[in-house]
Amino acid sequence: MASSLAEVKALVFDVFGTVYDWHTNVTKTLVTHARPGSPLTRSQWELFAHKWRQGIYTYRNAAVERGKYFSPETIYFRTLEELVKTQDVNEGWDDAEMKLICEAWGRQSPWEDTLSGMELLKANFFIVALSNGSAKDLITMNRASGVTWDYILTSDLINTTKPSPESYKIAIRLLGLKPEEIAMVAAHEYDLEAAKNQGMKTIYINRDTEDTLVDKSTLRGRFDLFIESGGLQQLVKQMKTQSG
Amino acid sequence: MASSLAEVKALVFDVFGTVYDWHTNVTKTLVTHARPGSPLTRSQWELFAHKWRQGIYTYRNAAVERGKYFSPETIYFRTLEELVKTQDVNEGWDDAEMKLICEAWGRQSPWEDTLSGMELLKANFFIVALSNGSAKDLITMNRASGVTWDYILTSDLINTTKPSPESYKIAIRLLGLKPEEIAMVAAHEYDLEAAKNQGMKTIYINRDTEDTLVDKSTLRGRFDLFIESGGLQQLVKQMKTQSG
Repeated sequence: MASSLAEVKALVFDVFGTVYDWHTNVTKTLVTHARPGSPLTRSQWELFAHKWRQGIYTYRNAAVERGKYFSPETIYFRTLEELVKTQDVNEGWDDAEMKLICEAWGRQSPWEDTLSGMELLKANFFIVALSNGSAKDLITMNRASGVTWDYILTSDLINTTKPSPESYKIAIRLLGLKPEEIAMVAAHEYDLEAAKNQGMKTIYINRDTEDTLVDKSTLRGRFDLFIESGGLQQLVKQMKTQSG
Repeated sequence: MASSLAEVKALVFDVFGTVYDWHTNVTKTLVTHARPGSPLTRSQWELFAHKWRQGIYTYRNAAVERGKYFSPETIYFRTLEELVKTQDVNEGWDDAEMKLICEAWGRQSPWEDTLSGMELLKANFFIVALSNGSAKDLITMNRASGVTWDYILTSDLINTTKPSPESYKIAIRLLGLKPEEIAMVAAHEYDLEAAKNQGMKTIYINRDTEDTLVDKSTLRGRFDLFIESGGLQQLVKQMKTQSG
């Protein structure tokens, strides 16, 4: 495995969860919009945020399987609407307030290892974002945090969402590289499995907020690299080992 | 006219000619590949470069009108091939050498006002590239020069080339802004006319190497802003006047 990443020239990043921490700000936004007499505790809102994320994934995946495309904004709203019903959250949010809450997805902060890690990786690799988010959200988040990319591919631009094969094919075609010269970097098993199916290399970044329903012990050895902790800073070190 | 740009939130830039100087490097590359006994002088190669640019534009525009898409690489090659025949350039270039010469389009340098101008504009506007070039060329050129963008739209990504209406529509849709909140910045009349047709604001940057077949005295007053000299640095000053 030591040399399997030696030919990699470009790193294609999943964004929400891998590069940015969605959970902190989404939870904070939910708590901010909770009514003074709300029966939900902070940890219940944290769980609610996870269920929302899961709902978004399920909704998106079902759409992909049916060959349909919905904008990220639409999916955020519909899954929140559904969740409020099924989880008996009675904060009395109207549509306008729910739309405001949905904007939390466009105001994520980078993980503490993101900025320094990205800068170092940039010295040796093309750095590309491949996100199921929208151009507007990505632009806003990058501006606020100082993260910069060589190229950004968002689902509203390429009109498809991961894990559809088309998403990865577009990234490969645009970079003009062989699939094995590109590594997908993600904190999600499904994302890396789909990238692997297109011949790309795969790098798993373990994040506490991601793949919470996955037995992570089964992931080790399934991908070209498994970063247990330290995120992108640790990835820098590992890539140096690989190429050394 | 003073307030016509006051609502602008995003600047969408043409790249080749407006932000980067294609002519210097394309000419240099042609001269480098000329045979020792070539009868062509340097100024004849400069003119050849201009004819190549014009051929690229004509080819692309004909394709757009017929609803066809060709990659930038294909267009560079075919127009060079045609030009070598019609201009009686007998350097004996084979296909491999012509492909090498075509790579000059991916190695342009920014104009001297570009970097400082972009940095200052970035403080007040979203900065987006809308280019008929390829992702690979844009990534390489940005890396080499230090130009950074909030978002990059290339013809191989959006599968259409300017001045097709679709190119501008995609930019407007992705930014999630009203057309009049976006200004197209270009050194080409055709680019701004097409942007204006979509309701975008228009900023003309005069560059000596661009629109050489256009009577520029007729352009003044046709666009929201006409930058005679100083390029992006002058644009910064003008935008401050507009918003002040």
